[in-house]
Amino acid sequence: MPEFLDLLPPLKARSILMENLSAVPEAERVPTVEALGRVTFSSIIAPHPLPSFLRSTVDGYALRAADTHGAGQSLPAYLKLVGEVPMGAIPQFALEKGQCGLIHTGGMLPDGADAVVMLEHTQTTRADEVEVLRAVAVGENVIQVGEDVAEGGKVIPAGTRLRPAEIGGLMALGVTELEVARAPRVGILSSGDEVVPPESEIAPGQVRDVNSYTLSALVQGHGGLPVRYGIVADEMDAMREAASRARRECDLVVITAGSSASARDLTAELIDSLGKPGMLVHGVNVRPGKPTILGVCDGVPVIGLPGNPVSALVIAGLFVVPVIEALLGLRVTRPSPSVPAELTVNLASQSGREDWVPVRLLHSERGYQAEPIFGKSNLIFTLAQADGLVCIPADDTGLEAGSQVEVQLL
Amino acid sequence: MPEFLDLLPPLKARSILMENLSAVPEAERVPTVEALGRVTFSSIIAPHPLPSFLRSTVDGYALRAADTHGAGQSLPAYLKLVGEVPMGAIPQFALEKGQCGLIHTGGMLPDGADAVVMLEHTQTTRADEVEVLRAVAVGENVIQVGEDVAEGGKVIPAGTRLRPAEIGGLMALGVTELEVARAPRVGILSSGDEVVPPESEIAPGQVRDVNSYTLSALVQGHGGLPVRYGIVADEMDAMREAASRARRECDLVVITAGSSASARDLTAELIDSLGKPGMLVHGVNVRPGKPTILGVCDGVPVIGLPGNPVSALVIAGLFVVPVIEALLGLRVTRPSPSVPAELTVNLASQSGREDWVPVRLLHSERGYQAEPIFGKSNLIFTLAQADGLVCIPADDTGLEAGSQVEVQLL
Repeated sequence: MPEFLDLLPPLKARSILMENLSAVPEAERVPTVEALGRVTFSSIIAPHPLPSFLRSTVDGYALRAADTHGAGQSLPAYLKLVGEVPMGAIPQFALEKGQCGLIHTGGMLPDGADAVVMLEHTQTTRADEVEVLRAVAVGENVIQVGEDVAEGGKVIPAGTRLRPAEIGGLMALGVTELEVARAPRVGILSSGDEVVPPESEIAPGQVRDVNSYTLSALVQGHGGLPVRYGIVADEMDAMREAASRARRECDLVVITAGSSASARDLTAELIDSLGKPGMLVHGVNVRPGKPTILGVCDGVPVIGLPGNPVSALVIAGLFVVPVIEALLGLRVTRPSPSVPAELTVNLASQSGREDWVPVRLLHSERGYQAEPIFGKSNLIFTLAQADGLVCIPADDTGLEAGSQVEVQLL
Repeated sequence: MPEFLDLLPPLKARSILMENLSAVPEAERVPTVEALGRVTFSSIIAPHPLPSFLRSTVDGYALRAADTHGAGQSLPAYLKLVGEVPMGAIPQFALEKGQCGLIHTGGMLPDGADAVVMLEHTQTTRADEVEVLRAVAVGENVIQVGEDVAEGGKVIPAGTRLRPAEIGGLMALGVTELEVARAPRVGILSSGDEVVPPESEIAPGQVRDVNSYTLSALVQGHGGLPVRYGIVADEMDAMREAASRARRECDLVVITAGSSASARDLTAELIDSLGKPGMLVHGVNVRPGKPTILGVCDGVPVIGLPGNPVSALVIAGLFVVPVIEALLGLRVTRPSPSVPAELTVNLASQSGREDWVPVRLLHSERGYQAEPIFGKSNLIFTLAQADGLVCIPADDTGLEAGSQVEVQLL
């Protein structure tokens, strides 16, 4: 079988694909309030410093630090109270030597003040006099202008996926809309003469389309826009027509092959003839997912996934997700979420091949235990029962029961 | 300051809140294709077995295992080829003793067949005869009826958040719409006389509203529907009016207090008077987030968060998210995503208090390193720079440089 003559390691296969990508992200302007999970197209530069004024971090008295030099419990510094700072407004007084002003957390320091003493470290016996019971350093309990962000500072680099914290940071700077990468359109084709749409009753010999929907959900979860082209017969003309249309209309095309070897060969031939350079990788040394096909056709990446639902979803995580991230211009990558766990049983693996094993996580006194779910890769509920995947690297011949593994959450 | 008389450990505070929740999830019917991230309202029961027919897992020949008894390289079993199984249809032939049929991966076994031999383990020298070069066991290379899912089996429990794998499983069973929990409405109020909307120019002394938007994004990310009630003055009548309206219209109300002690006292008084039983927790032994207030007012949980953006977001993760999950009826909980890392510096902490420290993750040869980002909790970009949070448990007085920590991803 020609497809298995030259199995590439997954990392090598992925770099070949990534090196052949030429598409660049496109910008689209959205309100910041709707931008959660989107990826910044350009860097965000602070239009002004944050905070833009000297701010107190405590409730207390704004003062001149020098006036408290040598002060202590037994020898308070006596300061004249000359006003109270209103929240959200400019203090209507300035401090001279020996003076202080009541201030609340978040309040603006009056002119002349360079520090704040906490209420707890003061006492008042007379209405217009404050006794400061300890020395205060310059800048104490104060946020400096620009301490959060300096004016002109690059606060969020291009290629950052926006989380709640970034949304808040943008709002703090008054950036209520911004340019993000347009969601890449990901065309999804299922092939297989035995496959029928999910809303169909199934006759003996038929199965419902699963891959179009697991892949749509995966694409959507990573910021792509899934475009389903339906189920195509395992027949070259029909496949070529659907795939050509998807290639013209989308930024990435994913084809799940029919499950037979001849259907897989058809997918390979199709991808190789759809545009230049065509097929780049045919067969990857990974289980599940050996018959994976990677190609680029006239600038559009085209990925042929195995037809088995478990294989298709696992392999899409390895190859489709990185392409979506590249098309989004994602540059600030964060670690993929995982959980440490102790393997419950021995897992054998073939040396040279990378294995991905679905596991269920169980609580134990020593933390999580990872229990492999053994099931053929045709069984979609194998994955529905799994919390994550354990990778057995290519240079390992297996993992022993009791060994510590990192479970990549699904 | 009355609020700090009795600081509860975070876990204890959370159980008090959760014990006082009475709301139950409500159902809403959605198409499965739009259900990613939603939580199942009822258990999903398989309407039929999966697969619904005996399926081959390989390309080869369907046969009767008994006919291959004792077969080997030097002594093949000779079988008569009587047909080919078409993909997606019922085989138009049955096997009798000594017969076999060509079958493709995913094809339906003909009557009489109980196993499949892989193409690689056969050879053909005559058109209608197949030589089987090894013995095959009953059931070999076959998926049994119901091996993925048995008819009537509970395939997805109520209270499960749907991932791509579950979406696929539902489609495989023809479940193209289902009941999920209605998204809980989470009312969000910001208070503070110094706070202005993000689209405003800021005058000295003013800051833009950050908390309404970080919290909206957090709520949205966890399956809630944020409803923003805007910025309310630090004044009892205005706050009571806005909070009462939010309490009537929402399933959960979150109020970020003004930053001064008096504004926080106002929030406590408000929550305690908004309905029965009122305030349940005032002050939690956690940093940041000491002045957290937890209450339930006439059946609606009301949470008072600190005004500082970092504190508000960290504390919302500890208290708001679990309430949203309870309102969604989430029962199948998955581990929160984390990454193991080595701490770069010593972190001191006060015994008895739980600390959450924002960290940046750096790649190193030994894996990730976690570098704390020291910044006052007023600085939102502290969190924007962070990959996650490290927890210093209450019974620790700190963590040493070089120790292994689990970084909870933001």
